[in-house]
Amino acid sequence: MKIDHIGIAVSDLEEAVKNYEKLFSRQAYKREVVEEQKVETVFFQTGESKVELLGATSDDSVIQKYIEKRGEGIHHIAFEVSDLDAEMKRLKGEGYRFLSETASRGADNKRIVFMHPKEHHGVLIELCESTS
Amino acid sequence: MKIDHIGIAVSDLEEAVKNYEKLFSRQAYKREVVEEQKVETVFFQTGESKVELLGATSDDSVIQKYIEKRGEGIHHIAFEVSDLDAEMKRLKGEGYRFLSETASRGADNKRIVFMHPKEHHGVLIELCESTS
Repeated sequence: MKIDHIGIAVSDLEEAVKNYEKLFSRQAYKREVVEEQKVETVFFQTGESKVELLGATSDDSVIQKYIEKRGEGIHHIAFEVSDLDAEMKRLKGEGYRFLSETASRGADNKRIVFMHPKEHHGVLIELCESTS
Repeated sequence: MKIDHIGIAVSDLEEAVKNYEKLFSRQAYKREVVEEQKVETVFFQTGESKVELLGATSDDSVIQKYIEKRGEGIHHIAFEVSDLDAEMKRLKGEGYRFLSETASRGADNKRIVFMHPKEHHGVLIELCESTS
């Protein structure tokens, strides 16, 4: 498993894009709305991994709810796997729980699934498989 | 800048090591106490980056205080830079603030410095330079 990306929940996406452009001294390479997740995403390449800024597109977006509860900050880490279904099966066998039974479509041409944060000591972990 | 590691604050380091070993299906490659930070660290390799589990070695450790305030979870992201002093100078010029004026010694043979989380939308960012 390698880190595919780190997702950061932000309340003002445009201001966050400006701040992270200055930090990385480079521009974002991609912007994408994911309707299913009610989120707009902006990606920065950082080595082999990406930083994904996440802004809510609706008040009932999980990102909006996260910010209301915890404030802005790191929302999840995503690890890339080559066979998502096989990895879900292996991890279920190890006793890990998932937030949904099957994978769904994420940004960046991925199939994604989230694991329950309890077993990861408060960290929300996404597993993703590239479909492009 | 590439992601050097993601630091995760945990209350029970041994239990967390077991859980992350199962997740990654591999063992930790390094364990190190950093006296200056009052923390014990355990590292997992994940692609070119690492996941660093952080356990407090003292009740006045920043990790202990973090857990008391926010619960377990992602404590910081570290980005590797080749010249830490030059990067600090560049970022100060861009208006970013640092939690200390100069770098200090971190785990894994690094010089490290933390940036103020305000400008990064709640994310505590460490910059690190390898000294080995």
